[in-house]
Amino acid sequence: MAAFLSPSTGRQLKAVLFDTFGTVVDWRSGVAAELGRFAEKHGLALDPFDLADKWRAEYQPSMEAVRSGQRGYVPLDQLHLENLKRILEWSGLSPSGFAGEDLEELNGAWQRLPAWPDVRAGLHQLRGRYVIGPLSNGNTALLVNMAKNAGLPWDLVVGLDLLRVYKPDPAAYLGAASFLRLHPGEVMLVAAHNGDLGAARAAGLATAFVPRATEHGPGQTTDLAPESNWDAVAPDFIQLARTLTLSD
Amino acid sequence: MAAFLSPSTGRQLKAVLFDTFGTVVDWRSGVAAELGRFAEKHGLALDPFDLADKWRAEYQPSMEAVRSGQRGYVPLDQLHLENLKRILEWSGLSPSGFAGEDLEELNGAWQRLPAWPDVRAGLHQLRGRYVIGPLSNGNTALLVNMAKNAGLPWDLVVGLDLLRVYKPDPAAYLGAASFLRLHPGEVMLVAAHNGDLGAARAAGLATAFVPRATEHGPGQTTDLAPESNWDAVAPDFIQLARTLTLSD
Repeated sequence: MAAFLSPSTGRQLKAVLFDTFGTVVDWRSGVAAELGRFAEKHGLALDPFDLADKWRAEYQPSMEAVRSGQRGYVPLDQLHLENLKRILEWSGLSPSGFAGEDLEELNGAWQRLPAWPDVRAGLHQLRGRYVIGPLSNGNTALLVNMAKNAGLPWDLVVGLDLLRVYKPDPAAYLGAASFLRLHPGEVMLVAAHNGDLGAARAAGLATAFVPRATEHGPGQTTDLAPESNWDAVAPDFIQLARTLTLSD
Repeated sequence: MAAFLSPSTGRQLKAVLFDTFGTVVDWRSGVAAELGRFAEKHGLALDPFDLADKWRAEYQPSMEAVRSGQRGYVPLDQLHLENLKRILEWSGLSPSGFAGEDLEELNGAWQRLPAWPDVRAGLHQLRGRYVIGPLSNGNTALLVNMAKNAGLPWDLVVGLDLLRVYKPDPAAYLGAASFLRLHPGEVMLVAAHNGDLGAARAAGLATAFVPRATEHGPGQTTDLAPESNWDAVAPDFIQLARTLTLSD
């Protein structure tokens, strides 16, 4: 019953934490579906996938303003709402032309994202052996609602709002290990993004890459393959669970 | 499908959080059982229930040293270990006479406490309607392990180590509402302790009392009945879940 031994950290794994947007849930399909319903309700002509991509494209720049100290910490829920208003304006739609509740409701799309089809089965298997949870830039309330909606069986949900940081700040990865009272090398980050894994490894965590080749749609060109010797690479969460529980 | 309306806060309930030690889990039986095994292993003559009571009696004074600012924040795991060493000394046993791992293992008793028999059924019903989680002085790692061991289906587990406070500091109750992005009045604390509920109410939370008449053993004289007009009073979690989901 030995746990997975991380080649890079030299430690037995105790907790497996997951990037969420893109890795666990399919934000593009989920957000586009809700944008489509919003457009229909308000009689708007817009391309839901194009607008979903634009909304997501504002994600990193809006967090960078916090990471760089240009503004104080604000939770991702709020950044998402600000970014929604910005992309509506770019589309020639005045945010003030919509009821506040309608925009809040649409913003809640990020709490109602569908899990990739392999996610629940893989997580249930991993949960029997490891502590599992998100390690996401999402705030706690967002992640709790996402988990309830998508049936994600997390052992714990701690959003980075509790640490008031955004990945890839090293404090995000180290803080997660710290509140689990584990050595960073006993904690694995699973992500579909090589950059996130690089920052996790630099902070001393174990790493696993699971590609999500259509996260950005059919023409995706990035993160199609592992770009380093991550501790584990698997095509989906079911195979990842097999790899991490092989000795069972 | 209206949620429970709290008479005291005038708000619809959205999250139900639980005191854990005593309210969710039977610390006295659990700790005494592990003390009994420890005594047997080391050939010690001691009364496991008496020692469990003494260990628990150190709980409030040790937190008070943090609350009063006499010392900086340390997680409950560490206070428990310090308190264990103290009660062993009082029993004429030198802590240094035991391997560090043996004391750590015994200290882990607080992560392996049995749930009261009505807990899981009640929580599963409540989880269909509300966000549920502990609001406990336990640190996150302790609470995550407790939940895994006892099968507690929490939506989120955030220990007060993330806020670096101990109840009944108002920041504990307000912080929990804040990271859920809820108004305090939309959050209920369930506890077997009138004092905890009083502090929760003072911070603006809804309150429910569930007595645990044998938490302190057969001769218990405290917290046998509600001492204020709490929003709900129920004999166990199953009845509590009925009260809070009556309109389903």
